[in-house]
Amino acid sequence: MIKDLSHFVGQEVTLKGWLYNKRSSGKIKFLILRDGTGLLQCVYFKGNVSDEVFDMADRIGQESSIEVTGKVKAEPRSPGGYELDATGLKIISEAHDYPITPKDHGVEFLMDNRHLWLRSSRQVAIMRIRHRLVKAIRDFFDGRGFTLMDPPILTPAACEGTSTLFETQYFDIGKAYLTQSGQLYAEAGAMALGKVYTFGPTFRAEKSKTRRHLTEFWMVEPEVAFADLNDDMDLAEEFLEYIVQTILNEREEELKILERDTTLLKNVKRPLPRISYDEAVEILKKSGNKFGWGDDFGAPDETVISSQFDRPVMVHRYPSVVKAFYMKRDPENEKLALAVDVLAPEGYGEIIGGSQREDDFDVLLSRIKEHNLPQEAFEWYLDLRRYGSVPHSGFGLGLERTLTWICGLEHVRETIPFPRLIYRNTP
Amino acid sequence: MIKDLSHFVGQEVTLKGWLYNKRSSGKIKFLILRDGTGLLQCVYFKGNVSDEVFDMADRIGQESSIEVTGKVKAEPRSPGGYELDATGLKIISEAHDYPITPKDHGVEFLMDNRHLWLRSSRQVAIMRIRHRLVKAIRDFFDGRGFTLMDPPILTPAACEGTSTLFETQYFDIGKAYLTQSGQLYAEAGAMALGKVYTFGPTFRAEKSKTRRHLTEFWMVEPEVAFADLNDDMDLAEEFLEYIVQTILNEREEELKILERDTTLLKNVKRPLPRISYDEAVEILKKSGNKFGWGDDFGAPDETVISSQFDRPVMVHRYPSVVKAFYMKRDPENEKLALAVDVLAPEGYGEIIGGSQREDDFDVLLSRIKEHNLPQEAFEWYLDLRRYGSVPHSGFGLGLERTLTWICGLEHVRETIPFPRLIYRNTP
Repeated sequence: MIKDLSHFVGQEVTLKGWLYNKRSSGKIKFLILRDGTGLLQCVYFKGNVSDEVFDMADRIGQESSIEVTGKVKAEPRSPGGYELDATGLKIISEAHDYPITPKDHGVEFLMDNRHLWLRSSRQVAIMRIRHRLVKAIRDFFDGRGFTLMDPPILTPAACEGTSTLFETQYFDIGKAYLTQSGQLYAEAGAMALGKVYTFGPTFRAEKSKTRRHLTEFWMVEPEVAFADLNDDMDLAEEFLEYIVQTILNEREEELKILERDTTLLKNVKRPLPRISYDEAVEILKKSGNKFGWGDDFGAPDETVISSQFDRPVMVHRYPSVVKAFYMKRDPENEKLALAVDVLAPEGYGEIIGGSQREDDFDVLLSRIKEHNLPQEAFEWYLDLRRYGSVPHSGFGLGLERTLTWICGLEHVRETIPFPRLIYRNTP
Repeated sequence: MIKDLSHFVGQEVTLKGWLYNKRSSGKIKFLILRDGTGLLQCVYFKGNVSDEVFDMADRIGQESSIEVTGKVKAEPRSPGGYELDATGLKIISEAHDYPITPKDHGVEFLMDNRHLWLRSSRQVAIMRIRHRLVKAIRDFFDGRGFTLMDPPILTPAACEGTSTLFETQYFDIGKAYLTQSGQLYAEAGAMALGKVYTFGPTFRAEKSKTRRHLTEFWMVEPEVAFADLNDDMDLAEEFLEYIVQTILNEREEELKILERDTTLLKNVKRPLPRISYDEAVEILKKSGNKFGWGDDFGAPDETVISSQFDRPVMVHRYPSVVKAFYMKRDPENEKLALAVDVLAPEGYGEIIGGSQREDDFDVLLSRIKEHNLPQEAFEWYLDLRRYGSVPHSGFGLGLERTLTWICGLEHVRETIPFPRLIYRNTP
């Protein structure tokens, strides 16, 4: 593979891949080969190869699949640092009129051709960062005694209202809904295994057409028994440091391809600043924002707050009215929920939402009634408080939003192989 | 945590967890504590602790959450090898009438209480094996240059007929279907990145009520550019050896809890036997089975075939009529598909299905038409043959079926935290 060429300098090799680009300079043809592991410039001199091969090198179109043979040379000016002094060329399948040319294309056109767009260097770089981020996330939890708990996708009831749920008929036993979060199931897991994490696709049928929303996205959700809000924040900051520093160390080349300025990413180290919701409201007021206590932050508010810090900021203790029914109240102020959101710098907004969970049976039951949730559907969840309830906490991190931030992208749509948006479920 | 006690022998420790079981012997109370990492016997002598603590130890019910204090002693007869010479006991939340007692319960009762059933040693062992298997699968591909490619769950069209698909309304642009396989998307990924794998939940709305079927299950699907059927079988056998040997090495204790006879699992080493469909048919005929050439194997057939071997067997080159439209035909016999199924020993049936894919545009197009598939929905898939088509192959392994086999279970339902069956989508 192209990534292994450093071990073959001076040797003749044969490589298979696709023609990424080509250019011509009199009696020399430069074919850029891609094989999924890198790019390689293959140089064909008219005198060194047969006329047939030289003509072929001239003729074949972008994305033709080919086999090239030649001698590996170190060449610092080439992409990847090596070059092939080519002697042979075979066509596996000749392509013509490949739709995505080195020219600029509109986003909708690229999205329609997502299956081909994925071949471009930029998309390959994002997918390689995504893969490494997924691995870093799993390594973090696997290395700290957490057990993976895959939650169900098809769930019987709505956690946060049915209006934003995808529903499907489930045989003859009623409707099922695509999960919005594995958290409630993770709580059952934490009572069985102490520390667990879920990591899978989640769904929101929200009619949000912003650059931050996908209808289908991956979320990782750790849940820890015997952990309070402070433990939760400790875990979140250690986690963020680990995953961001891992990507900086292991995907430097890909971040360069994306032209990502990594200055602020390098700051993602413990401790992360922790401010209360009240303090965040003060920041907004000082910035001239007419923000009323008790409201939730919108995206512009998050940008104002996060711009005060040189790394992600944790905002804790939100008004309970803007937070979910399962969050524990602050014993020192019943109006506050023991919640925390982590806001990324550079306007990327919330990447983590977490909380200590309500562990008192009676309080949780009254909360379920207040929210007009169907009690029967939550009996199993109440059982976690009937039998051996313990303080516990957790959080959720959206994979694609985090990737958008780490990669420095304009829109979340490039962070997942086949994005699903309210106006698109193809290809 | 209980798993770390070997470092604390002779020292006083405090542990939090749940009361798993208890027994009494005159002036001694034995409380078995579980904390998700193991079990610990805590011994309360009447003279050593206050009457209050001793009475508490007598009173509290199964699954109460508690905090115990005492000195760690090595005790080979105890579960885990250690014991706590207990001095203190605090109740976090007292439980009574926990539904799952050490007595036997019916399966439906246990399934209704799956959120609590997960706390039993047997279920904890299965979940720990599941976690390690998932990690082994990912480590295998991550360590061999594969890139993870999460395919979409919401897909626009049916790959293998709509009758076995869950469907949902997708805003105002039509129906979407829950994916049955990420393979077609993985093929797009392989053309971009060379070697990819998908690993996520997949869905079948099949009305199958067997011990092998879940409606929601996880599948891993590698896909490799420039790989033929033989390469595919090489990859599959290396993969199976790696994941099974990893579990044998790293989850020995859990397999003991499950009382798994690991004799045959130890045989899962390369090379795995490879027989053609024709040879498999001969085996069936010799065993007195009236099997007609051209039929697909049923579960009893698979059991007969696999019982001839001491390890998983690869059956290749099936009649193309029983296989999917995207499989390449054998150039030496047009009636055969370049497909391979891997059958597990001990009657566990098919755990891997794979094939070389059709890479010829015209053949694939005619196949799509023959199968009356909507061509428009497959245009993107045809593009993979229009632009730089290459020979490529892959396979899928069902996580839960593999776990059922490795754990030696009767039914697939215990291998996933919250199983979804045709008659159940709760809790």
